[in-house]
Amino acid sequence: MRLFELCAKNRDYRFSPYVWKVLMALQHKGIDFERVPCGFLEKDAFAPSGSKTVPVIEDDGNWVADSWKIACYLEDRYGDQPALFGGAMSRAQTRFIDRWADVTLIMGMFPMVAADICRKLDGETAEYFRRTREERLGSTLEEGEARRDELLPGFRQSLLPLRLMLKEQPFISGDAPAQADYCVFGPFQWARLCSDFEVLESDDPVWHWRERMLALFDGFASGAPRAAA
Amino acid sequence: MRLFELCAKNRDYRFSPYVWKVLMALQHKGIDFERVPCGFLEKDAFAPSGSKTVPVIEDDGNWVADSWKIACYLEDRYGDQPALFGGAMSRAQTRFIDRWADVTLIMGMFPMVAADICRKLDGETAEYFRRTREERLGSTLEEGEARRDELLPGFRQSLLPLRLMLKEQPFISGDAPAQADYCVFGPFQWARLCSDFEVLESDDPVWHWRERMLALFDGFASGAPRAAA
Repeated sequence: MRLFELCAKNRDYRFSPYVWKVLMALQHKGIDFERVPCGFLEKDAFAPSGSKTVPVIEDDGNWVADSWKIACYLEDRYGDQPALFGGAMSRAQTRFIDRWADVTLIMGMFPMVAADICRKLDGETAEYFRRTREERLGSTLEEGEARRDELLPGFRQSLLPLRLMLKEQPFISGDAPAQADYCVFGPFQWARLCSDFEVLESDDPVWHWRERMLALFDGFASGAPRAAA
Repeated sequence: MRLFELCAKNRDYRFSPYVWKVLMALQHKGIDFERVPCGFLEKDAFAPSGSKTVPVIEDDGNWVADSWKIACYLEDRYGDQPALFGGAMSRAQTRFIDRWADVTLIMGMFPMVAADICRKLDGETAEYFRRTREERLGSTLEEGEARRDELLPGFRQSLLPLRLMLKEQPFISGDAPAQADYCVFGPFQWARLCSDFEVLESDDPVWHWRERMLALFDGFASGAPRAAA
């Protein structure tokens, strides 16, 4: 198994939120894999997948792209390993939670951390990132960053469904984490790896859930190099 | 089985979003039940439950209050009937979706429909509703209503996670509906029963999902009396 993942100028910095959904899924399944870092503009290594973006896996000749499709592939192919979904209904519900994470967390945090991401890139990669992301933002990266204190209360408010649920159970998937948790954790890990801007308060149940996620698999996510540090 | 539910001045109008979560769950389970209408201030009938609010059920001497606790009770007590959850992981994930529905849908639509709800009440019930809900809104009910065209785009935008997911699967729970769908449907049914203000566009996948929900169980939800009509 090879996992193609995004890297910064310093190739040890791997912060894609979508890749982190897969990194945690692979840990959960207990699968050994090789990590292949790819810069934003380096797409040749995973070209056989037909995808222009990571995450991509190559598993015994099977190429699979897209974090959701990879999670489903892993669940179907490695059915004897710990389950990422609790059956078909749970899989469908996880897809809703995955989409909630993309919309609420990735889109919500993007303006707050985009300038920090760009600082970890260089040359034409930094130029490419700035051009495409400023189009998406409708402002310069620095204008987004300048507004982050103003954006933060609304972002924290958007976590209310998660916060209310975490008052009753330790993980989104119940007593133990599974793919729904990894889908939500990916964006938080992305933000903390690429920026030292803290999006959570330490008395927030979401903070404590993130701590539990960081500690999983012998601190696998906690030990990842932080570009911010 | 008796279900205690909220009613308007016209006691055929039963629009509580939380009660609708339970009404659909009872249909799903195929359980026969008696419906007991209670005005906003009529709490004596379900006092043995210890709850001040509906939904409440009384099942063979067991009193259970709160839509989530009732769904869990039904699933555990009627395990041989069709499942509301696909196991423990799905149950936990459904709780997240339930909280998402409360925060995004009920809180999101409340200012848009609260004045319409009040028009369906009378006397001290209408006064009670107005006083408590205006406190919650921080404005008069009519000021909320006057802003509804302005609030609508943001509300529709907040449905994006649901909309993206529905492009891939017909129900939140997959190929067929279950409690996660009923948790999200309850608020939409509340809005359409108490108001003729249309919150969805007819080309929205969420509209089509709502149509599928309305058609379930021989059009059970579709046939409910609309106060708006």
